[in-house]
Amino acid sequence: MEVIPGRPDLNTRTMEQMMGQAKEKGAQIILFPELCIPGYLLGDTWEQQAYLRDCEAWGTRIVRESSGICVVFGNVGIDWDKTGDDGRVRKYNACFVAKDGKLWGEDNFPYPFRIKTLHPNYREFDDSRHFFSLPQLALELGKPVEQLLQPVQVTIEGQPVRLGCLLCEDGWSDDYALKPMALMSQNSPVDIFINISSSPFTLGKNNKRNRVFSQQVKETGIPLIYLNSTGIQNNGKTVYTFDGFSSVYNPAGEVTAFCPAFSAQLACVDFDHHVQSGSQNILSVPDDWDISNIYQALTYGLKHFLHAIGMQKVVIGISGGIDSAVNACLYTQVLDPAHVMLVNMPSIYNSETTKDLAGQLGNNLGCLYTIVPIQEAVEYTIQQINQSPIHNRQSGEISHLSVSSFVTENIQARDRSARILAGLAASFGGGFTCNANKSELTVGYSTLYGDQAGFLAALGDLWKHQVYALARYLNEQIYHREVIPQKMIDLVPSAELSFDQAVDEGKGDPIQYPYHDYLFRAFMEHWNRATPEDILTWYLDGTLEEKIGCRSGLVKNLFPHHKAFIEDLERWWKLYTGMGVAKRIQAPPILAVSRRAYGFDHREAQNAPYFTAKYLEMKKALINGQ
Amino acid sequence: MEVIPGRPDLNTRTMEQMMGQAKEKGAQIILFPELCIPGYLLGDTWEQQAYLRDCEAWGTRIVRESSGICVVFGNVGIDWDKTGDDGRVRKYNACFVAKDGKLWGEDNFPYPFRIKTLHPNYREFDDSRHFFSLPQLALELGKPVEQLLQPVQVTIEGQPVRLGCLLCEDGWSDDYALKPMALMSQNSPVDIFINISSSPFTLGKNNKRNRVFSQQVKETGIPLIYLNSTGIQNNGKTVYTFDGFSSVYNPAGEVTAFCPAFSAQLACVDFDHHVQSGSQNILSVPDDWDISNIYQALTYGLKHFLHAIGMQKVVIGISGGIDSAVNACLYTQVLDPAHVMLVNMPSIYNSETTKDLAGQLGNNLGCLYTIVPIQEAVEYTIQQINQSPIHNRQSGEISHLSVSSFVTENIQARDRSARILAGLAASFGGGFTCNANKSELTVGYSTLYGDQAGFLAALGDLWKHQVYALARYLNEQIYHREVIPQKMIDLVPSAELSFDQAVDEGKGDPIQYPYHDYLFRAFMEHWNRATPEDILTWYLDGTLEEKIGCRSGLVKNLFPHHKAFIEDLERWWKLYTGMGVAKRIQAPPILAVSRRAYGFDHREAQNAPYFTAKYLEMKKALINGQ
Repeated sequence: MEVIPGRPDLNTRTMEQMMGQAKEKGAQIILFPELCIPGYLLGDTWEQQAYLRDCEAWGTRIVRESSGICVVFGNVGIDWDKTGDDGRVRKYNACFVAKDGKLWGEDNFPYPFRIKTLHPNYREFDDSRHFFSLPQLALELGKPVEQLLQPVQVTIEGQPVRLGCLLCEDGWSDDYALKPMALMSQNSPVDIFINISSSPFTLGKNNKRNRVFSQQVKETGIPLIYLNSTGIQNNGKTVYTFDGFSSVYNPAGEVTAFCPAFSAQLACVDFDHHVQSGSQNILSVPDDWDISNIYQALTYGLKHFLHAIGMQKVVIGISGGIDSAVNACLYTQVLDPAHVMLVNMPSIYNSETTKDLAGQLGNNLGCLYTIVPIQEAVEYTIQQINQSPIHNRQSGEISHLSVSSFVTENIQARDRSARILAGLAASFGGGFTCNANKSELTVGYSTLYGDQAGFLAALGDLWKHQVYALARYLNEQIYHREVIPQKMIDLVPSAELSFDQAVDEGKGDPIQYPYHDYLFRAFMEHWNRATPEDILTWYLDGTLEEKIGCRSGLVKNLFPHHKAFIEDLERWWKLYTGMGVAKRIQAPPILAVSRRAYGFDHREAQNAPYFTAKYLEMKKALINGQ
Repeated sequence: MEVIPGRPDLNTRTMEQMMGQAKEKGAQIILFPELCIPGYLLGDTWEQQAYLRDCEAWGTRIVRESSGICVVFGNVGIDWDKTGDDGRVRKYNACFVAKDGKLWGEDNFPYPFRIKTLHPNYREFDDSRHFFSLPQLALELGKPVEQLLQPVQVTIEGQPVRLGCLLCEDGWSDDYALKPMALMSQNSPVDIFINISSSPFTLGKNNKRNRVFSQQVKETGIPLIYLNSTGIQNNGKTVYTFDGFSSVYNPAGEVTAFCPAFSAQLACVDFDHHVQSGSQNILSVPDDWDISNIYQALTYGLKHFLHAIGMQKVVIGISGGIDSAVNACLYTQVLDPAHVMLVNMPSIYNSETTKDLAGQLGNNLGCLYTIVPIQEAVEYTIQQINQSPIHNRQSGEISHLSVSSFVTENIQARDRSARILAGLAASFGGGFTCNANKSELTVGYSTLYGDQAGFLAALGDLWKHQVYALARYLNEQIYHREVIPQKMIDLVPSAELSFDQAVDEGKGDPIQYPYHDYLFRAFMEHWNRATPEDILTWYLDGTLEEKIGCRSGLVKNLFPHHKAFIEDLERWWKLYTGMGVAKRIQAPPILAVSRRAYGFDHREAQNAPYFTAKYLEMKKALINGQ
């Protein structure tokens, strides 16, 4: 089902409808995902007791309506008499099993629901902030954890069925000392594991889940149904899509049924045919790590995000470059083209080439198009700043400021976004997009209140090379024609904010994407975040290109000598950990697709850039030896 | 000591200097705060192995230099052979006891350091994300927690001294099942408890700490030294000051020595005189919850934040209102007035009254002052938007937009900030301030990329009535004269963005601060966040004013009938949980002073406003009954 976070009323209604349909189809058990009543990513809404009481009441209603069908669902489980570690009322991330108007499973557990054992506290997850875990409860009760890991026995058509209820992370136990599936199956017989999840999509995650879950199913020999929600949820800074992809694993760990990604549907599976099935029913599960999955996640996320915030119209600043072009394509995929307005805002620095390309794209997409030049306003701003007398109220002196060429670049960027796009969008009755990509966001290569502004950065989790790949994918696989002019793809990327960035002369961004995309990815996405110390070590080892995954031979081409390499490394590291952080604090929400997105998934402090003692030693030795 | 987060090199240098001074004074033990080498609020820097190795190396250096003095300090304790729950290398938030070049305490613990038992996971804290706790270790080792809570025995002048090493939250155990101080003292004899902390300042926290810590000291009869860092640390969205206030509690739980708030100093205490002291040496500890503490925290935080980000000059948009005036005062307290530029940016809607008041303030503060009118640019923008032909590239039609009066208000706000202030600040070589207060931030009563923009919201954690109190405090206690003109304090608060907000006619903001400040505080700061359901319940009970803490009789005056009350309540709730969230996602960092600040201390998702079923029922009954 699609879960709408913060809307227990709507979620309950969805469940009721699906319960009705399931009964009609003669289903005996219906499964809903983790926290399907309250939603999962709610921030500190968990601190509102009224919200908790409300969710509890909606859950009670589902229990009441469970006559003739066994309903397994996720909700917050509340112990009003106890507190959590924060001193507030005790909350569990819980799995409820209801049938014939009552809850089952209290015979071998302290509560009439099961609770999550493993609480993820990495990336965007904050489970320990709000919920009390099974190990905490075990410690409090003075019992071993395994004693509390008991299946729920429910009677289906007169037969006892033992449901091994697990919640999301309980299945991802590789890095934990506790292995809930193994422990529960060692404890007492389990007929079937049910893992109810609220697991955001990231590239390649389903492939990994199939490996991890299959392995555990094989080891225990007990079949498993994995049940995940669809929809989108966000934590403010980062928006996640949920792809569902609910799957059935037979006792051999093979997938015998699954829902297609990003599709909410009532899927009926047969216990004998699917769950207990032999190898004759195995399905091949599609991969989920290529550009088509990115496209699918982005369009799904965009569509649902626009719906969630009630936005029906968007304005997109269109430069003739690749980022704004891909954004324009995505938005016209999910909105009526007459609700998408492209705005080209030329200054004297914009080439005929890019202006023409922007116009071509507008024609190809068939959306609204307008041109609003910024030159006059920019010159007026510079004049106002240069000419305003600055009075020193102590000394009585009068002075003047002088706008530099660098400041002029930023004035242009802010003029476009905060003056034109924001005004146009408000008059149009919509919002304007932020076209930044992940490479730019990494080093703050954008202007605050300028091109970094917007209501959402749809491509903010894509490296520049992924933006290009998406552009090619759109032309080849979606449009089957050159909607994005090939020249846009071939052109050197440039902000066109000065004559030093003239595209027709091949001048452009200071970021050398074929190398820096991978360097930045090593800083940001590597499991153990790479720092200048690691990068320099690999550089000296001759393994840098292999370690970061860029094209072989590139580093030597870009950097004629060690000093140039080091200067480049330090320049970007300082931006990544310095001004880049300051800008990201005020950046728009980002639509996440990778295993690490900016925002709440990547916590950072605005501290000074730092180089370790070992790095400084290595650098000194290298420079002196050169 | 002042801890600089992310700078183990500088922190180690500070420690070395203080160790030298302590030796000169003949000290036998020197204590440093929690995580004083790496810093505490570092975001995901903990995922950089190079940073961990670096901190470990700096710590080893302190151990090497501990000849002749016992050094107790906080650092990350690393077990390179084990992993944490996130699968990365295992990290402990640890307390090290070094003397004579070696670490002490491995005789009764698995590591040559002690680790934190209680991990805070509320408000801005994220300990479980990065560190492995003592209960987790106990579970892994199959030992009871209390068995691992052992003092460190170190030999001082030939005598064994048993140090009960605790870390920060270990002393704040009220809400936890585990009580580290009680457990450790029951286990084995402890001569003195040492609590090394990294505890941010919030109003009234030290008063509470004295109550909580005193009580436990009294119960155990064992004296305690509380050691906290100074400086500032941030998590991106929220900047915290650390006030030190290190204190000594004698066995009766009385304070016998303390460092003044916000002062880093080598304070020498005598074991017999202070630690084992009787009641003759009790000190009276100043309260820390009034406006003078806010002033102290804000100026300390501002000064250190500006230093940390290397900013020496600021530009402040000065409207003639109270928020910008108080900001201007605070910045001129911590910067050379010649580095503070006030900019008045009038449109046709600004009264002579406020323009005059702004000028008076500039004179009184003796800083730089300039006037940059926005009317022409605003009209040009409106004209550009109205006159740009919008081409429909599908139908060929041409249409035009029309700028409404509401959109015109926002155009003015953005013109001031993103066009003028940002350009001026960049040319001046500094940043521009965000003058928003907490009341405005709660309901998004500000324009994105307009008056919500800036590098820091120094007053972003103060309700409007606190801003007024601070204005009066500045005049009365700091300046001893009317630097902020009294008329600014008396004037109705107004954005002056339209003739509907004419101050001279007494027209102004839609927020009725004497009531809404307290309503918003109930939404945001109450321990159990208040929702419309709670507010309406209290309203019907007749306890609303008492519950939220506003002036008695106010509610009846403001709302002639129930419907008006409900409309007001729903209006602000929708803004608080709707557009307010969207704006806060892109808001500047906030300087925290309260027990709950926006940013990382208040996690929130951009979900739709929600009203519980019970609220809707109550409302229906009320409206129907009316």
